Amino acid sequence: MIVVVTPNPAVDVTYRVDEQRIGTTQRVRRVERRPGGKGLNVARVLAAEDVVTHSVLPLGGASGTWMADAVAALGLPVTVVPVPGETRSTITVVDDLAHPTMFGEPGPDVPAMTWLRVDEAVRAAVRAAVCAEPAAPAAPDADALVIAGSLPVGSPPDVVVPWITDALAAGALVVADLSGPALLAAADAGATICKPNRDELAEATGRTDERAGALDLLRRGAGTVVVSRGSAGIAAHTVDAVVEVPAVPGVTGNPTGAGDAATAGLVLALARGADIATALRTAAAFGAAAVLRPVAGEIDHDAAHRFTTDLETTRSHA
Amino acid sequence: MIVVVTPNPAVDVTYRVDEQRIGTTQRVRRVERRPGGKGLNVARVLAAEDVVTHSVLPLGGASGTWMADAVAALGLPVTVVPVPGETRSTITVVDDLAHPTMFGEPGPDVPAMTWLRVDEAVRAAVRAAVCAEPAAPAAPDADALVIAGSLPVGSPPDVVVPWITDALAAGALVVADLSGPALLAAADAGATICKPNRDELAEATGRTDERAGALDLLRRGAGTVVVSRGSAGIAAHTVDAVVEVPAVPGVTGNPTGAGDAATAGLVLALARGADIATALRTAAAFGAAAVLRPVAGEIDHDAAHRFTTDLETTRSHA
Repeated sequence: MIVVVTPNPAVDVTYRVDEQRIGTTQRVRRVERRPGGKGLNVARVLAAEDVVTHSVLPLGGASGTWMADAVAALGLPVTVVPVPGETRSTITVVDDLAHPTMFGEPGPDVPAMTWLRVDEAVRAAVRAAVCAEPAAPAAPDADALVIAGSLPVGSPPDVVVPWITDALAAGALVVADLSGPALLAAADAGATICKPNRDELAEATGRTDERAGALDLLRRGAGTVVVSRGSAGIAAHTVDAVVEVPAVPGVTGNPTGAGDAATAGLVLALARGADIATALRTAAAFGAAAVLRPVAGEIDHDAAHRFTTDLETTRSHA
Repeated sequence: MIVVVTPNPAVDVTYRVDEQRIGTTQRVRRVERRPGGKGLNVARVLAAEDVVTHSVLPLGGASGTWMADAVAALGLPVTVVPVPGETRSTITVVDDLAHPTMFGEPGPDVPAMTWLRVDEAVRAAVRAAVCAEPAAPAAPDADALVIAGSLPVGSPPDVVVPWITDALAAGALVVADLSGPALLAAADAGATICKPNRDELAEATGRTDERAGALDLLRRGAGTVVVSRGSAGIAAHTVDAVVEVPAVPGVTGNPTGAGDAATAGLVLALARGADIATALRTAAAFGAAAVLRPVAGEIDHDAAHRFTTDLETTRSHA
């Protein structure tokens, strides 16, 4: 079972307008609301691939209630941890003329006491995962914890530490798709995989060189550093090697959620015992298969499996 | 008692960003949420002036729940009519560099059956108002119904008709601050006062001349047509006269909600038995007193009463 924590979930709202213009009153022609947040996208992709997941979502206020109902409607198993304040929204404004404009709310102030409740929820979910009877006793999947997305503005980065140490102690592998100080905290806690994109790695470590930044995280304690490079593919850094997989060529569409689908592919492959090269190929394939779908949290299943076999891996020893 | 219907209430959200730029991802530095909608602003101003009000609000979804809680926290008596779908939000994006940009959602699809429930709620509130013991038996205020704001996109304009005919039949006066076809429907139903602004009057009647547009509404059945002219004051049209009051000079601040405060001043004066000239002066004064306050739904009480005595009235016979 894969436990997925989304520390700062969001109601993703899309507004379609005739023409984006600053300083005017714009009639919104169509409103779409979807439950969002990187972890939730990961969980949705995994669930669509028939992986048993359990999500932990801190939710608050009326938007949190909406989100809990929407997640239940998706059929995702979830532990909701009540948070004071309102779960954030992100508003994406689209027209047919310009690039979309995205407004991201900072998220609620989550008090320390609430983070303790999140700790308990994560611990319980990981324990339930580890203690569950495997669906296929002959070749059981490994259990895993995925932590994906931002922390609410103002939350201390080390709230992620007990989730990671508890999961590792229980024998689960941990994939941390985090940024900023929370990424450093995840490396310090010994996450099995730290998975920033190139910009996040540079920003968190202050290193413009990818290898140098990855080595920083490895020295802090990360098991492997997987760096997503967008159209340049994906790479896995260990202390003595770099494994690289190119992106699937010629795929165009909606890149929103592609990184989350890649995380889902990565953890799915690792939980099933794949080596890191196969896991990277699965990640690249899942990312490309997400681009083929119009909304985040979904992948083109057949394309994902076709792409996985097509990619070649490069290994260089450092 | 004054019954106030807000057919399409909105959660008014303000996003403060560093710099509005189309096509970018913008971090929202501060989020404010307030219960909004023209009728609700009118009710808040009236309640602050110690007028007993009762609001009728069709509300739906998580944002409707938020709104109901927020209105209860304001202490406003209210009948909530449950609506399928989500109560709309309006998002106003502000920075220190450009004019604010406002995104207005269309509002939920309100089925005919739900409008019947709104009819019942308005009828019950008007009946309760008419049957209530007056607070000051010697000089009781008249009862009134205020309908203020847009209808949800797609709702038929004549949903306002039974509210108006029932209120008139019960002996209440009716102030309709509506636009488009709903304004015409309110005139057809014989609303005591139709109160568009100049643009709304021109748009609803197709007449660029204010007097010609007002005469259209009067011929349809409106008792008096009050036209708010922004910085050019306010005017009342009957078939044989135009009464005009200038705006309070030299008032600067936040014009949001000034029109709603003017509606509150107008109905308050009329309910207390004032003539139309006094009612216009009160409306102009309340509008100006709203400009002095940073948020819609509030007025500077002392300024409102000082302004009322300062304004001069012009009457011309048509």
